[in-house]
Amino acid sequence: MKIGLDILGGDFAPESTILGAIEAQKVLPTEQRIVLIGDEHAAKQRIQELGARIEDFDFVHAPDNIGMGEHPTKAIAKKPDSSIVRGFDLLKNGEIDSFASAGNTGAMLVGALFSVKAVPGILRPAIATNVPKLKGGSGLLLDVGANADCKPEMLNQFAILGSLYIEHVLGIKSPKVGLVNIGEEEEKGNILTTTTYPLLKNNSQLNFIGNIEGRDLFTDLADVMVCDGFTGNVILKMAESFYVVTKKKKINDEFFDRFNYEQYGGTPILGVNAPVIIGHGISPPEAIKNMVLQSRAMIESNFIDKIRSVFN
Amino acid sequence: MKIGLDILGGDFAPESTILGAIEAQKVLPTEQRIVLIGDEHAAKQRIQELGARIEDFDFVHAPDNIGMGEHPTKAIAKKPDSSIVRGFDLLKNGEIDSFASAGNTGAMLVGALFSVKAVPGILRPAIATNVPKLKGGSGLLLDVGANADCKPEMLNQFAILGSLYIEHVLGIKSPKVGLVNIGEEEEKGNILTTTTYPLLKNNSQLNFIGNIEGRDLFTDLADVMVCDGFTGNVILKMAESFYVVTKKKKINDEFFDRFNYEQYGGTPILGVNAPVIIGHGISPPEAIKNMVLQSRAMIESNFIDKIRSVFN
Repeated sequence: MKIGLDILGGDFAPESTILGAIEAQKVLPTEQRIVLIGDEHAAKQRIQELGARIEDFDFVHAPDNIGMGEHPTKAIAKKPDSSIVRGFDLLKNGEIDSFASAGNTGAMLVGALFSVKAVPGILRPAIATNVPKLKGGSGLLLDVGANADCKPEMLNQFAILGSLYIEHVLGIKSPKVGLVNIGEEEEKGNILTTTTYPLLKNNSQLNFIGNIEGRDLFTDLADVMVCDGFTGNVILKMAESFYVVTKKKKINDEFFDRFNYEQYGGTPILGVNAPVIIGHGISPPEAIKNMVLQSRAMIESNFIDKIRSVFN
Repeated sequence: MKIGLDILGGDFAPESTILGAIEAQKVLPTEQRIVLIGDEHAAKQRIQELGARIEDFDFVHAPDNIGMGEHPTKAIAKKPDSSIVRGFDLLKNGEIDSFASAGNTGAMLVGALFSVKAVPGILRPAIATNVPKLKGGSGLLLDVGANADCKPEMLNQFAILGSLYIEHVLGIKSPKVGLVNIGEEEEKGNILTTTTYPLLKNNSQLNFIGNIEGRDLFTDLADVMVCDGFTGNVILKMAESFYVVTKKKKINDEFFDRFNYEQYGGTPILGVNAPVIIGHGISPPEAIKNMVLQSRAMIESNFIDKIRSVFN
C-alpha cells in the first residue's frame, strides 16, 4: 500500500506535514508506505534532522507548490512540477493508492476531477466533512462546497456516497440519512429539497429518516446529512467559527473539542476513482497524521470498489 | 400609541404573555398602551390575581387560538375569533399600531401578508433575526425563513429593509451590508449569490461590504447579513442549538448568553405595512416584555414610513 502525501500543502508546510508523516509512519506496518511528494532533498534533510529514518519513506520530487490563493485550474495547467499535479499523476497511474493534501482546496478538487475523474454514473463528486455528535461519535455532512448549485439527483447520489462511506470506512451499518431542510414535514423546504425528498424516500439503497433541521446537525438523528454545497459550506464554516470562539474563550468541553479538525484529518472527495483527501489549510502535524490514517482506512475498506459496484 | 399583543400565542401562554405584558407596562408612559388580545375574562382575572391593575391595559376579546401545529392558511380561514386573526383585523383597521405574537409563525406571516399586506414595491417581505456579535452589539440576519427560494432582486430588497431597520430602529448609521456566501471574492458562490452581488454592489442606498462567510456571522464585518430564507433558517436553528448546548453544559459566557432570544423579544417581519413581530414559541415573560418594547421602537421610529418612502 502506498499512501500519497503532499508535503508542500498547507500553511505550516513542510514542517507540519513532515512531522505528521513521521508520526503516522510509526503506527503503520512495514508494507504500508507513505509517499512524500514535494521537495525531496529538503524533506530528506529535515527527516534526518528530526531523528527519523529516510528509508522508512518513499519520495517523489516535486519542487513547485500551488499557493493557497492561486486559481485552481490555471495553477494546475501552469505548474506540472507542483506537488498537487505530481500527486494526481501518480494516483492516476496507480503509483500511489490514495492522495492527501492540506493545500489549495480548489486545486485538489479540480485535480481529482481532471486526473482520476468521477466514477462512471456519478453526476458530481462531493466533499464530505465529519460532524461531531453531542452523544459521541460523528456524522457526515455533504456536500460542503464542491457544488454550490445542486439538482435533486445529485443530492440523491450524495446520500448514497455518504452512506457507503459511513458503512464501509467508519463501519456503521445501515446509516441513517437525513435531508438538511427547514422543517420536519415532507412538504417543507425550497424547490431543491421538496423535489429531493421523494427521491430519497423511494431510494431502497438508503435508510432515509426524513428532514433534519439546523438544530439537529449535532444530535443522533442522522448519520449522513445531505445538502447542497452552498448550505453545507455555510454550516461548516459557522461550526468552525464556534469552535474557534470556544477556544478563544478557553471553554474546555469534550463536545466542542471534537470540532477540532485535527482529530479528523481531512475531508474526503467522494465519487472520484481513488481516495482523495483535502486537509484544512492550517493543519498541524496531528491532522496530517490522521489524514494519512484516514487515507489508509479508505484504501483498506475498498471504498472505491464499493462505489463502483453501486453506480455501475 | 396602541401596542397589540396576542396573549394566547406561545407554548407558555397565557401565563407567560400576561406576566410579560405586566412587566412591559411598568416601563411604558401612560399614553403608550398595551392591547391584550385573547380571552378577556381570563386575562382580567389573572392580572388582578397577580396584583396588577386591569385599567392599565386595553382588552380585545378573542377566545379562540391557532395552535402551533395548525396549517396557517386553513387556520386563519377557519378561526375568525382567534387572537391572531383578530389582531390582524385590529392592525389593518388602525385600532392598534403594531401586533406581536409568540404563536404560530406561519399564521403570523400569512396573516400579515393577507391583512396589512406588503408595502407597494416590495416583492416579498422577510423575517429578520438579531445575531449577537462577539465584540458586543448585534447584527441582523434576513431572510430566516419566509422565502425558501429567492431571486436576486429579493435579496437586494432584503438588504435595503435590513439597513433601514438597523439605521432607524437600532440607531446605527450607514450599516454595513454583507452577502452570506461561500467565498470572499465577487465571483464565488451559487447562481443566486453571484447574480445578487452586482445588484448590491451597484445599489447606492447600501453600504455594501461584499461577501461574508459562515465564519463571519458573529464578527463585526457586517451589520446586515443577507441570504435566502433557506440558508438563513438553517443558520438560525443551528445557532440556537449551539446556545442550547452551552446551557445544557452549564457553560456561562457573556457571548453565548446573548444568543438567548429572551433578550431580543422577537423577529420582525420586514416589508409589510405595519410593525409585526413574531416571538419564539417558548417565549418566557422577559421575551414577551422585550417584544412589546421592540414593537414600541418600531412604531416610534416611523420605520414603516421610512420603508414606504424608499420603495415608493
